[in-house]
Amino acid sequence: MTTPARLEIIPLLGFPQLEAPCHLGELVMASLKENQLTPQQGDVLVVAHKIISKAEGAVIDLNTVTPSEKAIDIAQQTGKEPEMVEVILGQSKKIVRQSHGVIICENLLGLICANAGVDRSNAGEDKVVLLPENPDHSANELRQFLKAKFDVDVGVLVADTHGRPWREGAIGMCIGLSGADPFLDYRGQHDLYDYEMQTEIECVADELCAAGTLLMGQGNEGIPLVLIKGAKIQIDPHASSTGLLRDPDRDLFR
Amino acid sequence: MTTPARLEIIPLLGFPQLEAPCHLGELVMASLKENQLTPQQGDVLVVAHKIISKAEGAVIDLNTVTPSEKAIDIAQQTGKEPEMVEVILGQSKKIVRQSHGVIICENLLGLICANAGVDRSNAGEDKVVLLPENPDHSANELRQFLKAKFDVDVGVLVADTHGRPWREGAIGMCIGLSGADPFLDYRGQHDLYDYEMQTEIECVADELCAAGTLLMGQGNEGIPLVLIKGAKIQIDPHASSTGLLRDPDRDLFR
Repeated sequence: MTTPARLEIIPLLGFPQLEAPCHLGELVMASLKENQLTPQQGDVLVVAHKIISKAEGAVIDLNTVTPSEKAIDIAQQTGKEPEMVEVILGQSKKIVRQSHGVIICENLLGLICANAGVDRSNAGEDKVVLLPENPDHSANELRQFLKAKFDVDVGVLVADTHGRPWREGAIGMCIGLSGADPFLDYRGQHDLYDYEMQTEIECVADELCAAGTLLMGQGNEGIPLVLIKGAKIQIDPHASSTGLLRDPDRDLFR
Repeated sequence: MTTPARLEIIPLLGFPQLEAPCHLGELVMASLKENQLTPQQGDVLVVAHKIISKAEGAVIDLNTVTPSEKAIDIAQQTGKEPEMVEVILGQSKKIVRQSHGVIICENLLGLICANAGVDRSNAGEDKVVLLPENPDHSANELRQFLKAKFDVDVGVLVADTHGRPWREGAIGMCIGLSGADPFLDYRGQHDLYDYEMQTEIECVADELCAAGTLLMGQGNEGIPLVLIKGAKIQIDPHASSTGLLRDPDRDLFR
């Protein structure tokens, strides 16, 4: 292991509010310039999923939604709006838990999270933002665009904040990525006492998204982009987020 | 909200390997000096739980352990050493899941984690490290010591890496704290579109421990301390980690 440097997490300020589908890469490049930042090889860009969804038009006006009977039923049980429940059901493979006014779904991406990731905050009046249809693909498009413009390979991580079983509060985690290995695998390496580690795998992608989310916030901060310098992440052009999701057969909590 | 600054995460290098109970505060102070760091008001110190446990003598030599019949049974089912299982059982309120060679326990602190937090890596030959008996108390002792020495109030977070349901890889999270509110509560605040947020609570303590763990690593890095500057955490002398654990009555995944 090389001596780790400091890790620097830099918020990109002044990013515009997106209202309609647009070219995210151009906006990110403009924002980097405005913030006088030049991405360097091995930097990691953490992107709030919401600007990807908005750029891709994955926003639904609840006034245009006609709830099904099932959605109306669940809305009555949970105290949610029927239109919102209809959108949630459309984004879900199945409902994993429903109780205490909360709907935990396995969404179309295989993520298990509240409301299938459908979110009202920072969506706009009467609107909800969905998760991107293919966050790895979106991350890859952005990475390729930045590579062409800056001639460096930057890891791109797509972040969303999720609640967790057993613990209060939500934290940023990784729902899509490009160019960066999400894991640091210590198995077979030796600790300070020369003991060979058996099981240790660290999910650096989730840790980096958690770190980035500290600056993004959840409210009116308007910071959907964070550049991280000094992260011990391995640049891997073929990396995908698929491995982040535990195989249901190996999962003890479904 | 004020404009967020950069977040800087600084590893403390050269920390000694602890072999016997010792005064952690003195060692932390020496390490800060060696790294030419002066903690400032509002900084956050993330501490790997393992050095707290070692400083407090919460280390067990497996050669001194006589496994019970129950431990021998579970050892056979899971492929673990009976002595290790005996220690795990001693640290547990109950076993939450047992399968695939994994034992997920609710430990004495109420944390749900693999092996009740008992860990062989970086423990020493034939030894295991337990979690600190009262991580909040340990964090508070360290905070008070640093306050007396540097005349500033630093948030102290105790980190451990835990696996999660549904997701692969472990990440750093907070198992104890002093001086820093673990949450940022957005409920009642307004988003960029003036929508009043209903449910958003961010667990910044877990995000900061995840960020710190990025530099600590799991192997032979020898970095059990990380200083974070620029974190949007609220200094609160009465903060405790109790609120991090979801009330079982509100938990959908036990």
